[in-house]
This record gives sequence, structure tokens and C-alpha cells, in this order.
Amino acid sequence: MSKKDINKVKHIDLDSIENPKFLAALSYEELDVLASDIRGKILEVTSNLGGHLSSNLGVVELTIALHRVFDLSKDKLIFDVGHQCYTHKILTGRKLNNLRQQDGVSGFQKIDESPYDVYEAGHSSTSISAANGFAIARDLNKEKYNVIALIGDGAINSGLALEGLNNIAHSDHKVIIVLNDNGMSISKPVGGLSKFFANISTSKGYNRMKHGYQRLFSKTKFGRWILHISSKFKNCVKRTLTQGNLFTSLGFAYIGPVDGNNIKKVEKALLRAKNTKKSVIIHVNTFKGKGYKYAEDDEAGYWHGVSPFDVETGEPKNKHEGMVSWSHVYSDITALELEEHKNAILISPATIKGAGLDCLDKKFDNRIIDVGIAEEHAATLASGLSISGKHPIISVYSTFLQRAYDEVSHDLARMNLNATFLVDRAGLVGADGETHQGIYDEGYLSSIPGTVITMASNIDEAKLLYDESFNNHGPFFIRLPRTLVCKQDGFNKIEHEFGKWMKVKEDSKDVAIISCGPLMRELENALNNEGIKCTLINALYINPIDKSMLDELLEAKKIVIYDPYSTRKGLVDSVMAYLLEKNFKGSISAYFVPNEFVKQGTIAQQLERYNIRVIDVISELKK
Amino acid sequence: MSKKDINKVKHIDLDSIENPKFLAALSYEELDVLASDIRGKILEVTSNLGGHLSSNLGVVELTIALHRVFDLSKDKLIFDVGHQCYTHKILTGRKLNNLRQQDGVSGFQKIDESPYDVYEAGHSSTSISAANGFAIARDLNKEKYNVIALIGDGAINSGLALEGLNNIAHSDHKVIIVLNDNGMSISKPVGGLSKFFANISTSKGYNRMKHGYQRLFSKTKFGRWILHISSKFKNCVKRTLTQGNLFTSLGFAYIGPVDGNNIKKVEKALLRAKNTKKSVIIHVNTFKGKGYKYAEDDEAGYWHGVSPFDVETGEPKNKHEGMVSWSHVYSDITALELEEHKNAILISPATIKGAGLDCLDKKFDNRIIDVGIAEEHAATLASGLSISGKHPIISVYSTFLQRAYDEVSHDLARMNLNATFLVDRAGLVGADGETHQGIYDEGYLSSIPGTVITMASNIDEAKLLYDESFNNHGPFFIRLPRTLVCKQDGFNKIEHEFGKWMKVKEDSKDVAIISCGPLMRELENALNNEGIKCTLINALYINPIDKSMLDELLEAKKIVIYDPYSTRKGLVDSVMAYLLEKNFKGSISAYFVPNEFVKQGTIAQQLERYNIRVIDVISELKK
Repeated sequence: MSKKDINKVKHIDLDSIENPKFLAALSYEELDVLASDIRGKILEVTSNLGGHLSSNLGVVELTIALHRVFDLSKDKLIFDVGHQCYTHKILTGRKLNNLRQQDGVSGFQKIDESPYDVYEAGHSSTSISAANGFAIARDLNKEKYNVIALIGDGAINSGLALEGLNNIAHSDHKVIIVLNDNGMSISKPVGGLSKFFANISTSKGYNRMKHGYQRLFSKTKFGRWILHISSKFKNCVKRTLTQGNLFTSLGFAYIGPVDGNNIKKVEKALLRAKNTKKSVIIHVNTFKGKGYKYAEDDEAGYWHGVSPFDVETGEPKNKHEGMVSWSHVYSDITALELEEHKNAILISPATIKGAGLDCLDKKFDNRIIDVGIAEEHAATLASGLSISGKHPIISVYSTFLQRAYDEVSHDLARMNLNATFLVDRAGLVGADGETHQGIYDEGYLSSIPGTVITMASNIDEAKLLYDESFNNHGPFFIRLPRTLVCKQDGFNKIEHEFGKWMKVKEDSKDVAIISCGPLMRELENALNNEGIKCTLINALYINPIDKSMLDELLEAKKIVIYDPYSTRKGLVDSVMAYLLEKNFKGSISAYFVPNEFVKQGTIAQQLERYNIRVIDVISELKK
Repeated sequence: MSKKDINKVKHIDLDSIENPKFLAALSYEELDVLASDIRGKILEVTSNLGGHLSSNLGVVELTIALHRVFDLSKDKLIFDVGHQCYTHKILTGRKLNNLRQQDGVSGFQKIDESPYDVYEAGHSSTSISAANGFAIARDLNKEKYNVIALIGDGAINSGLALEGLNNIAHSDHKVIIVLNDNGMSISKPVGGLSKFFANISTSKGYNRMKHGYQRLFSKTKFGRWILHISSKFKNCVKRTLTQGNLFTSLGFAYIGPVDGNNIKKVEKALLRAKNTKKSVIIHVNTFKGKGYKYAEDDEAGYWHGVSPFDVETGEPKNKHEGMVSWSHVYSDITALELEEHKNAILISPATIKGAGLDCLDKKFDNRIIDVGIAEEHAATLASGLSISGKHPIISVYSTFLQRAYDEVSHDLARMNLNATFLVDRAGLVGADGETHQGIYDEGYLSSIPGTVITMASNIDEAKLLYDESFNNHGPFFIRLPRTLVCKQDGFNKIEHEFGKWMKVKEDSKDVAIISCGPLMRELENALNNEGIKCTLINALYINPIDKSMLDELLEAKKIVIYDPYSTRKGLVDSVMAYLLEKNFKGSISAYFVPNEFVKQGTIAQQLERYNIRVIDVISELKK
């Protein structure tokens, strides 16, 4: 359709949409216009509020087609991850003007937002197993509805998704899996499956050739005889062909590949899938970032998750002059460590870009391994490297590291193998909400024997801890928050003993405060500004705790523990249990994030919500 | 070879073996005799000491062949799980007469036992990722050796192994994967991959037919012309054929299937694999339990892991009259719950037999789901079922539940979905040692918001807790130890409020003891026998703790916490932190398992090792 044609076609007022029932009456021309308008809306919203951009631009037509072929008030559509559900939100009557804001619409599926949201996620690769559960329940209840999992080509590489596939293949409970293949995942694809996806379209060429061969032989009687006698062979070929696909090998029906940005074609494929008896995979090719030039040209994943930006220039709106993210601080140090330690190897489960490590790609080429969304493999691979004398550095978000709990314990800690973990986005994370909080790792990592858990309060300590992690301490975790820090040229070398806490301030022994991370520095400033006399301890080693330092504090009248980066299941409970053992007689107060799934908002709002800001500590001390 | 022939062939004295170098000089007849002798040794050892039987009987020839084709003092052989390494231990000079005993030889690979053990495991499915690490390190160091992962058809279904496969397929670092397919896993196979393994031998028939077809056409000139002009087509067929395999689809070379109990044939395949340029999968069929009639006929997995038994009769040596395992207690209750709650569905990740649930198979058929070795899928599947109104019961060993940490958090707890987890083998586990301890789950599960963690001290409480788990409390964990309990007919109904602890004894308020599990009952008996006056609390709800009960204890002069089923990261630290907050002024002592990887021994020996027996508490109290 030319631009001129589009102008003639009826536009739907997106704000007037209450549910997707209107879609049935639209022509394909009208649907194309709708798709274009939805793209505009997605751009408008994400450029103002930030959010997931490329993945949402890619699936506009696919989502429209899903809503036309299925009745999603009855059929169950499970978005994997859920970050690509903006079109779905618009079509089911949700306004996105407060997207990802405190008390606003979530960036993911949320059951209490809409009856069209039947499941929730945030972490990837859960949709297939969940769909299996929905389908089993449906069949046991003798109900009739479709269960559809929409999953990307990156997410399907994860062990959980592969376990799900393997189990569904064996199960009699039909599930429709829509594989949204944009050849991208978050950034470039990884692994044998991706290669397989790329190869699969060559089967088209094969089919064309086969038909040509049949035409040739059909022209003569003898040829037809040959075709006849070779029918057995042909059937065998056919069986091999249909078996000759990873998915069909597992027992799925397979449809595709289909152009996922063509509503009509996708509808046709979805209808076929709907009418298929057994579990089926529809392989849909979509164009990630479609309709926005910067996102279309983006191979590195810069436009996957975005902060507010100028639509025209693509430049970020909020420039933080003189500031830098902690991820970038650690990225810079990583470059130095890779330079210094020739045995160091960086591993990342699909978060090279997210963790700001993409700049290292070219320089250290064969010492950087992106394993795709495979946190478990990342940790066990690290154990194989470590036992062979290499020093793995694993950069992973705190929330995703949960996937590798067993591997960290069984494959690394148990054999006391050296590894540095950069635990990115530790602490509260803001707009991503419940599914992405990095507040649990102090608890779960300290439940594993022999782990060293640390957090720097400034850039020099970041370098100190990173350096220390190479000194044979087994698995060594460095937590870094999702906040900014003032830029600094170079590093001031600190001499500091492994495992020891630091006295940052000591102008009174009556009150001792134990804290960690950059907010400890903010607290230090506030204490000094307010002229509050106390002892301030920098617990840069969170686990194990520094018992000799604690012994020095036993005579204090009051001890305050301030760890706004974690629930109480880490530093707080460890310190408190020790103080009780040592018969500490003073009073105690502790600031930490409650052991909850913390809802979205800015990090500042989240700290305020639980009264765990620096000013909350100050105001207690002033009383 | 007939029995008569065998008698003529030279026997190797197994006790004289120092290393596997002698194998090179043996004839195939002598190797067969050796294999037979090794089988005898394995039977002798396991029948006396218990251990893994069937898997070890299956891989005798395969292990011999591996040691002949590779120089495993340089080449790296990684046994997945490692429970099938007894032949390897014998061939590398280890005596098995103290297998799995305290300070004895481990039942798994152990690096400090032998230079031939290059990696360690105990949990399944780690070998492929670890091998990837070994291979990358080798190539970066420009060294030359082979890296071989030996993995079973059950273990390869796990997400971790599948992530490993996917990543190796993409990697330039050659690994040899020996897929030991006995069509059994621990018990019967599960999933699409298993079906694929079963189908794969049909490709032999296809190859035969293809050759026949070629012969037919080659007989005439015209036929040869047809063959010639169809060469393009043939190549396409060939490509499809070689692609037409799940592994080759991913990018592996594939050899097999091979008879794994035929040393000569396996050697040939291993040699081919050794000479292959890219990563290769050798598909080996072995006969689990081979050579011992009871194990050969076993389809349920009874002979997978065994206690000491009489070789002739197959009967267990140690009969515990009047006793029953906790697994069986919960199996009985599970039957009642499935009867009462028609929406309940039992899920097990390959431990149906291990958890004593196999007796339910027939009765509840479509409400029992064995997902294979796929703990992650088990938990996310449960979330899909639960959100659809079903009540999933997940039976899983404490140590394997670690694999599902993220899914328990993100997919169940976050949405507050109801599910009952039977956390089997919680606490110390005895002979399996470091890799299987169930002492960490109190810590890691309590780091997840909203989890209810419980442990019954007797059979009636087991019923109480199981019943309570159906009352909408979100994910509800019931820990059960690997010990025996006196049989009991039926259940005595207990009325008890959710979340509350029980006062078991209260004849003095000076000393309060907080404990849980069956050892709490032993402590109760010991206290009564010794006439020690105190308050004894049954903390059957481990998380969250019962704060109102703790408030009642604040005036005690001494509080003792006795949780020999966990490290301090669960009940102990939670109680201590609360007591400190409440300004408890008395003294405190706590008994728990140190946060270590606890080495093998009997459970009694392990309790003694850390002075956390009932008598240790008693002797403190008597002072």
C-alpha cells in the first residue's frame, strides 16, 4: 500500500479501544493502517517513558493476527517474558500513558490489569512450560480452548524452554507455540538452534527442486514408472524431510517459516495451527524494530530496552552529564582485568549490551563468550574453564542469576573454583518491577557454602574488589546497583585486607552504623552534614561478615544496619545473629527491603515506599 | 564366547590394577573376561555396601573401550552425574571395599582420589557445559587433548544439558559427547528426545533402501543417466538426511547407534569420533543392569540405587521391621490427598521411584506427571496448572530443588500460586556426600518472599501439614528427612492453627528449646528420660517463624535452637535475629549443620562430626 492509499483508509482511535472485538470487521488495508498507528503509539510512549521498543515494533502485525484468529477472552495467550505485549495492551483497552510508572500499567503481562492477561512473567523462557500446565488443566477439565505460547528465538534457547518443549512433545495436551524469530534475540543470535532457524528456510529451495524433478519425470511414461517404483523411496524421503527438522524430530507439527509482518499470511498459518490435532510450532519471521529507522538498523540491541529518547535524532532525552552507570564502571574495569589477567574469560548470558560490555567485544574477541539466555550453562561452563586454569568472569543480572543457583553451588562453590561474578542490577531496579528485583541475591548466595559476596561504595573500591576476586577466593560476587555514579579519571589504589570491613568514620562509639554500597557514601555525607557523631562501617564484604570488626562494636549503645540493597536475608540477619551470639546488650535497628516482590516505580519511590532512604536513617538518629 | 572358553582365558587380578595401561595388551577375549570380572566386583561391592548398581553394570564395556581408545591421563573424561564410574575407578587403581563409607572412596568422581578424575558431579546434566569449558581452555592454551562427556539419555533431557548442547553446536571447540542410551534414564524414559532416540535406529532401514535404489538404477545406462542428472537432488536428499537428525540439525557430527556392550564396536565408533574434526555425538546403546538378572528385568528403576542386598535372592540385607521411610509415609498421604482433592496433580522430576511414589502410578494415572530430569519445567508447569485451578504437588529431593530456585520464585511465589512441595531427603543424607546434602533449602527457600517452609516431627503432623498445604497458602514446602520412622496405622487428627508452633513440654520457663523434625521428638524423649525441666517448642513452621510464641520465650534465661536438618541460614538465623530485635537478654546456643559441603558417611556419623546429636544438646543442658 502506498502512503497515498493509507491516507484514504479509516483510522481507529486507539484511545477508544475497549477490547479487540472490533478487529474482526476491519479489512486488511484498515489493519495495516491500524498497525502503523500502533507503531506510532509505541514510539510515542517509549520515547517519553522508556521501555521495550524493538521487540514491540516487531510483533504488531503478529499480535493483531493472534487477536483475530483466536478469541483471547477464552483462548489463553501467554507472552514469553511479556516485554513485547504493548500491542496486546492497546488492543485490550489499556492506555499506555503511565507505562512502567508507579501505580501505572506494567511493562509486562499482569493478571490484575486485564482478563486478557492470563499469566505473568518478566524472566524469559517460561511460556512453554506454563502453556503445558494450562493445556493439561484444560483437558482434565474437559474444556475446549486454545493455549498459545508466544516465544522469541532467543528465549527458546534457554534450558527451561527446552525442557518444556521436550515435555510437550511427549504430551497429549495440545499447545500452539508461536516462535517469533527475528534472528536477533536481544542482540545477535547464539547457538545451534539459531543456526538451525537460519538454515530452515533453505528447505523452501529444496521443495522447489523436488517439484521440478517430479515435473521432469512425469513428462514420459518411463519417467512416471520410475516415479511409481520409487514411491517407497519417496515416502522415505518425505518422512525424512518431515522428520528432518529439529521440532518434528521431537514430535511437533511444524508450520513455517511465515512472514510475521504480513497479517494475512500469519492469520493463515495460525488458522492451520488452530486446526492441527497435535502440538504445533509456527515459525514466524518478524522484523525487530520495524518502522523506526534507528531500531531497524540496530544489530547490537541498543533499541531493545530504552530510556526516554528523541524520536527524530534517536538521542537520549535525559543526559546525565558527568555521571556514568555502575555497569559502565565495571565494564571499564573488566577491560583492565582482561588486559592484566590473560587467563580471564568473560561470559555473559545475553546481557553483553545490557551490562555495557559490548565495547569490549572487538578487543578481546575470543575471550568473550555470549552464551545466549542460558544462565545455567554460563555457570557450569565457567566451572569447566576454572578447573582448567582459566579465570571466568560472569556478568549477569542479579535476578537472572537465580536461574543458576544450583550450578553456582554444585559446580563452582562445591569445588571451590575461582570465578568473578559481576552481579549487575543488584538491589532495587525501578520500572521493571516485581520480576526483576535484585534484592534477593545476598540471601540466596549466602546460603551456599564458601561464597564471597561484596559491594563497592565507590569506584576505587570497585577496582579493589575486582582485583581481589582474582586472588583464589572461590566464587566471588561483586554486586553493582542500577544507579549512576560520578565519573572519575583513573583509580586511586586502596590497600585493604581481604574480608575486612572499613571504618569510614569514628567520632563516637555510642552509635555504630553498618552499611554498604554507594548509599553508604550518601549516608556518610548526610551524617557529616548533619554533624551526627557515630562510627560508620563500610561492610564491603557482605558475606562472610567481618566478625572481628563486629567484636569492636559490641560496646556500642546502638547499632544500625543499613542495607537498602537487599532483603534482611543477607547482611542484616547475619549481623544480627552474630550480635545475639555475642550477647550484644545495646539497641538495634535495621533498614532493609522487606522480603516482598517489589512493585514498579522509580528506585527513589521504592526506597521511599519502605522508608529506607538515607534521610530515614538520619531522622531516626536525630531523635 | 561360551562359558567353557572363558575359563581358558587369562583373568586379571582386579586388586592388582594400578592404572589402565594394561588394557592395551589384552585381546578381545581377555577384555570380555575382564568385563565379566568387573561386573562380579560391582555386584560384590554394592551388595555389601549399597550404591549405584544398574548404571554401573551397563557401562562396563563402554568404560573399558574409552580407556583403550583414549589416554585418560591426558584426555579428559567427564562422567555426567558420576554414579556410573565404578568400572573407571577399578581400572584406575581404586579399591572399592570402602565405597561410600566415611573417609572411603566416593560413589562419584572425585578429583583428589585420582588424576584420572578431572571433574566432579553428583547432580546430573553438567558434563556437556563443563566439557565446553575444558575444550575452550584447551584451545586457548593451544594444547592437544580430547574432551569427552559421557552422559545418559535421561540426563541429556535436562535444561542445563540442552543449553550445553546448543552452545557447543555453535562453538569451534571440539567436544566428544558419548550418549549412553539405555532407554531407561533412572526409570522409564520421558519426553520427545527419548522418542527421538527410539526412532533413530529406523534410519538404518532407510540407508539399506537407498542403496538398493542406487543398485537398481546403476544396472542400465539410462538408469545411470538418471542418477547423474538427479545428483543435485541426491545431494539435497543427502543434506536433508544428515540434517534429518536432531543432533545434526544443531550442527553436530553424529555416529551411531552403536552396541555399547560390544567393546570392539564401541572402540571403532570412539576412534571415528576421535578423528572427527567437529564436535560429535556418539550414540551408544547399553543394557542397564547387564549381567545381573534382577537388574536386567527391572523396568521401574528399583536397582538404580540400592541398599545392601543378597545377591542370590535380590532381597535387602537390612530389614527394618516395623519401620518405614519418611518417603513412604508421604507417599501414603499423597494417595489420600489425591483421593480427597480431585484437583491435585502430582509432578515428579524423575524421582517417582526414589520418593516411593511408584505405587500410585496405576491408581491416579493421568494425575501423575513424571517430567524426567527437568526440575525447572516441573515448577513452571506447576504454575500453569495452579493458575488454572489445579493443585500441583511437586515431589523433589531438596538438593535437586536447587535447580528450580528461579522458577519457584518467579513463577510460583511471585503470583502467590498454591502448590505443595514434598522436599524429600531434606537435611543430612549420608553416603551420597557433598553433592546431595539437603541442608541448604531452609536458607534458599526462605530468601523467596511468601514461601511456607515446614517439617513434621511425627506421622500425624505430616498429615496435618500436608492437609494444610491445600488451604491457599501459596507455595508450601514440607521437608522430609532421609530416615526411618516407626510404622503407624492410620492418623490421629490434630487440630492446629496455621503458622503456629507447638509447646511440646513446659515444665520450666528458664530454658526454652526450639527444634523441629523427628529429632525434636528424640530430644523430647531424651529430656524426659534425663528428667531435664524446660520448655520444648516444636517449630513445625520453619518459615515464617512464629513470633508470638517467641515473644512468650523472651523471659527465658537460656534459649537453645536445635535444627540438625539445616545450616544456620534458615530457622536458626531467623530466630536469632528476632530475639535480638526483641532485646532478648538471656544466653543463646544453637545447633545446626555448618554451612559446608558435608562429606560422605552415615547420617549418624555426620551428626557426630559436627556435635549436633541429641546427646550433644542433652550434655550441654546437664551442665
